Amino acid sequence: MAAAVTSSADPRQPAGRSQIKAVVFDAFPVFDSRPIIRACEEAFPGRGSDLSNAWRTRQFEYQWLRALAGQYEDFWQTTQSALDYAAHSLKLELSSSVRDSLLQGYLALKAWPDVPDALAELRRSGKQLALLSNVTPQILHAGIKSSGLNGIFHHVISTDRIGSFKPDPRAYQLGVDVLGLRKEAILFVAFAGWDVAGSKWFGYPTYWNNRQNATSEQLGVTPDGTGESLDDLTRFLAESRA
Amino acid sequence: MAAAVTSSADPRQPAGRSQIKAVVFDAFPVFDSRPIIRACEEAFPGRGSDLSNAWRTRQFEYQWLRALAGQYEDFWQTTQSALDYAAHSLKLELSSSVRDSLLQGYLALKAWPDVPDALAELRRSGKQLALLSNVTPQILHAGIKSSGLNGIFHHVISTDRIGSFKPDPRAYQLGVDVLGLRKEAILFVAFAGWDVAGSKWFGYPTYWNNRQNATSEQLGVTPDGTGESLDDLTRFLAESRA
Repeated sequence: MAAAVTSSADPRQPAGRSQIKAVVFDAFPVFDSRPIIRACEEAFPGRGSDLSNAWRTRQFEYQWLRALAGQYEDFWQTTQSALDYAAHSLKLELSSSVRDSLLQGYLALKAWPDVPDALAELRRSGKQLALLSNVTPQILHAGIKSSGLNGIFHHVISTDRIGSFKPDPRAYQLGVDVLGLRKEAILFVAFAGWDVAGSKWFGYPTYWNNRQNATSEQLGVTPDGTGESLDDLTRFLAESRA
Repeated sequence: MAAAVTSSADPRQPAGRSQIKAVVFDAFPVFDSRPIIRACEEAFPGRGSDLSNAWRTRQFEYQWLRALAGQYEDFWQTTQSALDYAAHSLKLELSSSVRDSLLQGYLALKAWPDVPDALAELRRSGKQLALLSNVTPQILHAGIKSSGLNGIFHHVISTDRIGSFKPDPRAYQLGVDVLGLRKEAILFVAFAGWDVAGSKWFGYPTYWNNRQNATSEQLGVTPDGTGESLDDLTRFLAESRA
């Protein structure tokens, strides 16, 4: 994949790459959720992308609605509810075995191919590494195990610790609290455009791992860097040492 | 339209219809936004429903994201940003005149046909009437004027007063504070399934004006009543006096 590294042009918001002591990742720059999309298509041939789109939309919406309303349920519960909604809305008959098998996909996530080498290089350069995600601790630990990434992350943080979800600022604050670093020393790596906005609003330098060429959200923020793969990320960080 | 009145079967949550002193409406049980959808189709023949679906999805998501992150911008601003996102994501060229004309649709909303008679009947029965919506005060007042509903609502409340959006409980609390009634005495009338959930979570008796036969959201709540039109709503309330 071609590198597509950009930098913030705003002189008031220097990326401050030389000060970066830690890289904190959302789950999905690390773990590839496309097998779940493929499983939707296998279960409902010709309707898989409708189902996975409706499922994913409600997954996030249910998280934000519940966090904003103070009615927290964890990612596992909101993901089940979102799947049930998606199937009903599309009039798809979801047997309990298909339902279970689609959900189990979240406990079998594997890393994208570029991840192991990039994380190893970041560790060699002395960075602390962490995950900071809305998914449950179980999903994070299962993905680490399935991907052979045991021992790579210094910290594995689910926003379940505070009973809320990103972009609640208290969710991003977990990174500061657990790592014991100023926010300016932590590069946050987002997968979704909304998470780019949330992490920038919170005050992290932010890198957008835009693996699927998504359209930028219109939320008034620009990431400090953008690239398709974690190779692009390691190059972005290496520039500061040039 | 056929009446489809249902009641909560949960004995712990009596609808308490005889105690209802006020009916508080979201904007969209009152105002019909379908002309905006038709304007999308006129501007982009064959792509109108894609555009209006993408626009509406981001409209709400941007509200919830900004409210949860403490980065409020009002409905007018988030609606513009959502339209820009929707057009970009669909690779539609949005001229400034088409953009303005689509947005102006929100300042020309008209009531659904059943609204004037139903509101008049509710007033005759002694109910206080209010609007409580995420849209701006300008949009609410323009809609009232365009629909000939001047003087019908005792209170017109935009959540802009607190710089947040439903389902933030502080947004629903505005109804209690402005009307000076206990929440149990206020029937909240929602259009969207998420607003049914938010108002029930807050503690209002809730009626779902499900005008478009939408699929119930999987958010763990059941409205106290459901119907397609405001005629169904007046029948629901009249039952308590039978």
